[in-house]
Amino acid sequence: MNLSFMILSIILVWIMVPGIAVFYSGFVPQRDVNRILFNSFLMFGIAGLLWVAVGFSAAFEGNILGIIGNFQHLFLSGLDLSSTYGTTGLPTSVYLLFQMMFAILTPALFLGAVASRARIRFIVLFVICWSLLIYYPLAHIVWSTSGFLAKLGVLDFAGGTVIHIDAGITAMILAITLRKPYQYNNEAAKGNSMWILFGTVLLWIGWYGFNAGSALKLNMQAINAFFTTTVAACSALVTWIVLENIYKSQVTVSGICTGSICGLVGITPGTGYVTVFGSFIIGIISAIASFYFMNYLKYKLHLNDYLDIFGCHGVSGIVGSIAVGLFATKSVNSNVITNGLLYGGGFKQLGLQLLGVIFTIIFVSILATIIVTVLKKLFRGNIGVTHTIK
Amino acid sequence: MNLSFMILSIILVWIMVPGIAVFYSGFVPQRDVNRILFNSFLMFGIAGLLWVAVGFSAAFEGNILGIIGNFQHLFLSGLDLSSTYGTTGLPTSVYLLFQMMFAILTPALFLGAVASRARIRFIVLFVICWSLLIYYPLAHIVWSTSGFLAKLGVLDFAGGTVIHIDAGITAMILAITLRKPYQYNNEAAKGNSMWILFGTVLLWIGWYGFNAGSALKLNMQAINAFFTTTVAACSALVTWIVLENIYKSQVTVSGICTGSICGLVGITPGTGYVTVFGSFIIGIISAIASFYFMNYLKYKLHLNDYLDIFGCHGVSGIVGSIAVGLFATKSVNSNVITNGLLYGGGFKQLGLQLLGVIFTIIFVSILATIIVTVLKKLFRGNIGVTHTIK
Amino acid sequence: MNLSFMILSIILVWIMVPGIAVFYSGFVPQRDVNRILFNSFLMFGIAGLLWVAVGFSAAFEGNILGIIGNFQHLFLSGLDLSSTYGTTGLPTSVYLLFQMMFAILTPALFLGAVASRARIRFIVLFVICWSLLIYYPLAHIVWSTSGFLAKLGVLDFAGGTVIHIDAGITAMILAITLRKPYQYNNEAAKGNSMWILFGTVLLWIGWYGFNAGSALKLNMQAINAFFTTTVAACSALVTWIVLENIYKSQVTVSGICTGSICGLVGITPGTGYVTVFGSFIIGIISAIASFYFMNYLKYKLHLNDYLDIFGCHGVSGIVGSIAVGLFATKSVNSNVITNGLLYGGGFKQLGLQLLGVIFTIIFVSILATIIVTVLKKLFRGNIGVTHTIK
Repeated sequence: MNLSFMILSIILVWIMVPGIAVFYSGFVPQRDVNRILFNSFLMFGIAGLLWVAVGFSAAFEGNILGIIGNFQHLFLSGLDLSSTYGTTGLPTSVYLLFQMMFAILTPALFLGAVASRARIRFIVLFVICWSLLIYYPLAHIVWSTSGFLAKLGVLDFAGGTVIHIDAGITAMILAITLRKPYQYNNEAAKGNSMWILFGTVLLWIGWYGFNAGSALKLNMQAINAFFTTTVAACSALVTWIVLENIYKSQVTVSGICTGSICGLVGITPGTGYVTVFGSFIIGIISAIASFYFMNYLKYKLHLNDYLDIFGCHGVSGIVGSIAVGLFATKSVNSNVITNGLLYGGGFKQLGLQLLGVIFTIIFVSILATIIVTVLKKLFRGNIGVTHTIK
Repeated sequence: MNLSFMILSIILVWIMVPGIAVFYSGFVPQRDVNRILFNSFLMFGIAGLLWVAVGFSAAFEGNILGIIGNFQHLFLSGLDLSSTYGTTGLPTSVYLLFQMMFAILTPALFLGAVASRARIRFIVLFVICWSLLIYYPLAHIVWSTSGFLAKLGVLDFAGGTVIHIDAGITAMILAITLRKPYQYNNEAAKGNSMWILFGTVLLWIGWYGFNAGSALKLNMQAINAFFTTTVAACSALVTWIVLENIYKSQVTVSGICTGSICGLVGITPGTGYVTVFGSFIIGIISAIASFYFMNYLKYKLHLNDYLDIFGCHGVSGIVGSIAVGLFATKSVNSNVITNGLLYGGGFKQLGLQLLGVIFTIIFVSILATIIVTVLKKLFRGNIGVTHTIK
Repeated sequence: MNLSFMILSIILVWIMVPGIAVFYSGFVPQRDVNRILFNSFLMFGIAGLLWVAVGFSAAFEGNILGIIGNFQHLFLSGLDLSSTYGTTGLPTSVYLLFQMMFAILTPALFLGAVASRARIRFIVLFVICWSLLIYYPLAHIVWSTSGFLAKLGVLDFAGGTVIHIDAGITAMILAITLRKPYQYNNEAAKGNSMWILFGTVLLWIGWYGFNAGSALKLNMQAINAFFTTTVAACSALVTWIVLENIYKSQVTVSGICTGSICGLVGITPGTGYVTVFGSFIIGIISAIASFYFMNYLKYKLHLNDYLDIFGCHGVSGIVGSIAVGLFATKSVNSNVITNGLLYGGGFKQLGLQLLGVIFTIIFVSILATIIVTVLKKLFRGNIGVTHTIK
């Protein structure tokens, strides 16, 4: 049962990779659609193969100072794929494949930001450096039992820090360092609502694999994750259209979809730790925070985040990660050592979550900036888009 | 195994919600596409959260006179989500989530009829009233072991009455009471065949979760449901294009898709009770009945059912529900107490099925009319569409 | 667990049928899109029902000379659907349904070639004859334990010969015998990259059911198939865009998608027999072979294979089937009797694979040519498209 559930989960997370591309496609002019589709599919090749070659070993085998794994199993050498991996109860290959999809998805999340800003060679090199220097360490730090944040007790059930804050901050750094795309202003182009909806559909169903699958077993935690994922998305989408109606006197397909996704992002870190009621509230506050950022703060900051990647994944990821410190409860998951603030556990878990968030923001910001700077030098500044992709 | 199968089924029924919206989108002018997409997604928020808050308790907890459950578990209070629900063998939360998707899907089925006819506030209020007064009671009456039609022995495996006749009749009442949309005549606009096909794809695969999942276990009934669902859709689509070819001298993508869906609707109530041969025949007669209604009777009745929601879900739902009285057999499912007419059981089951159909038609017609009438008063008649949805 | 996995696999292979249609749709002018969508959906009715009526018995029940099953279970008569089928451990109906999807998919693969070349009556008759004379025998010969190629030891895990070479050769025969479509030249029309990507997404995820599901159990072979399928697709897509960049100085969405599919085709016959490293290499050589054929050899041969059905399914299917003779290893699957050449087993398996490939090519070529010739006579040559499909 667990194996069959995990196979389904792997496929569902797979679906999110084209899902995010189709979602972004709905917001950009036709000219950039192909570029976005191409880049996301390219991640299967680049981030996917790199994960098999290096990533799994670097993130989940061994431990160096709590910040990275080892490099003894490059190209799967010496790995017994059919033996059980750690305490997961899963064959190593299944765990590797599940994690592989996240390693492919995360760059696909932030690549929307650079679709029309950078040529493919730059993107390929950036993703390789980003995987090696940011993603693999962060996955180790947060998810490996020997990672230093994991050891401290920072909770991230399905990837609020490793995936969403990471992708959001990387997108922001790229948006800042790459300058704005030729004729885009801060608003995405008039959208194709069908693509936006389709992308959201792929993302939402994929998220069931993402969140529930992160339990690695079809147990009550996984079912709780399924439930909280659903409710957070529902409460966030309602919140979003209420806000749209109040502040913009309209409701939109892109709004209801964006709202859903913010709810899904927000619930990700806590999905296996909070109650259904907790998820309901987390959906609401994620939607409010992202709505406020996308419609007001973004302009004040002059951030050219025209696909709102930071606004959605970054902001809701931060809100959701911190919310774990409020809503986590042992009654849902015995892996919770200290209850969240609202469940009588005091400020300890909240502090830990803040630490995790701040660490992730700083770690990703610094390294992403360094990578961009070095690559820019390497390319002598010529990183802009050259060809049209058919 | 059962749990993994049910998780898959929940996701599959989830997919039907955008599926029906995409299907309808293929038949309407661009102007109304966004409205349909928006309304269907809105159901996740409205019908979904309402189900968690009220619906599950009202439909499946306790019993008042065989027509409704109780209201003691509002907002999940007092529910032990991880304990087994009744005789299902499933955790309560899994059964709740599976049923939640039907509570979201059913309004999405009939909302196509009102997309361009009613403003969103009206839709939200209508769906809330419809859920409380029509859907929750009907689900209790037919599916709860203490529902009065269930007790009488009316069979509805996956939702012929509760979902399809219900949605079809509601759509018809809305079509009659809301007058026709501004410039639509009785024909849907020239379609976008790709959307129609895509919608059908989402619906068909979703239907596997809908029909097979309704066994609540991955047993031979579920497998029989999978098989009969497939065969009924296949025989219905062939029937439809033969009819199109004979009576209209053409075949169309919308026809082959509509035919499939009529077969799927038709087999729904009997999918776990009839043989593969039975499903083959049910597919054929569902397609014939819906084809006849959509192409002839609809015009005689001057019914402005331009998306053929009653023609498909209502007509094939009625045909399929009655057909259970002909084709149900103990050899497929020991829950069948009396064989259908064609399997030597006499007229008893047929009579019961007719009773179920007639009750559903009358119950839904009356209550839907009352709800619309009251809401019209409340809105002082101003229920028409006002804004364009982007 | 196995049952739940197989139900998922059946649905995934189901998805490939519209998947291939959507993929092809992206390459043809709008005029032919509906025709392709219609034809593929029609296969559910024609090839699907024929499979239930005749196919399963003809392919998998009994044995006549190692080339065909028997005809004693027409219309499922005498089949106990719930008893275990052979050594599969699955209920007969589940095995029948899984195989049914292949019987529907394979004609859908080659029908792209005739979408704008033949009227629907011709297509229906062709598919019926092709199923009876080519597909059912070939499935028996290769997959039934009593089939003569199976007995000789030819390995085809998921359908390299039966499905891909078969479909590729049939498409080529149709391309040759039906002459080119009215105004098409050898190049597909300017594509719709979103359809191409969507089709690829449906195909890729479907392929997980196709390849992993072919293990019929969720065992380590299935997981190995899942892994090798992923890696072959990834390495093939990278290879393809490198080749595009070198030889055409561009990269395209259609290229990255076509590359993926060539990798998926190439790994199909060996997916449960080769290592992850083997799949990496098979992906690369499949992509190289298909790229070379599609961009050079096709023109030299003046083959009007404008959707590159032979170029993809035929060429990569041949390459992948032969590659089993190089890369198959007992370490992955104890059903491998003789290791491939590169694993020290000598030329035996390679010879067997070549035999399987050559037999399939000759068998399909001859029979497909005969069927077309006879049907042309029957239609007195009037097989061209007549009506537009709406």
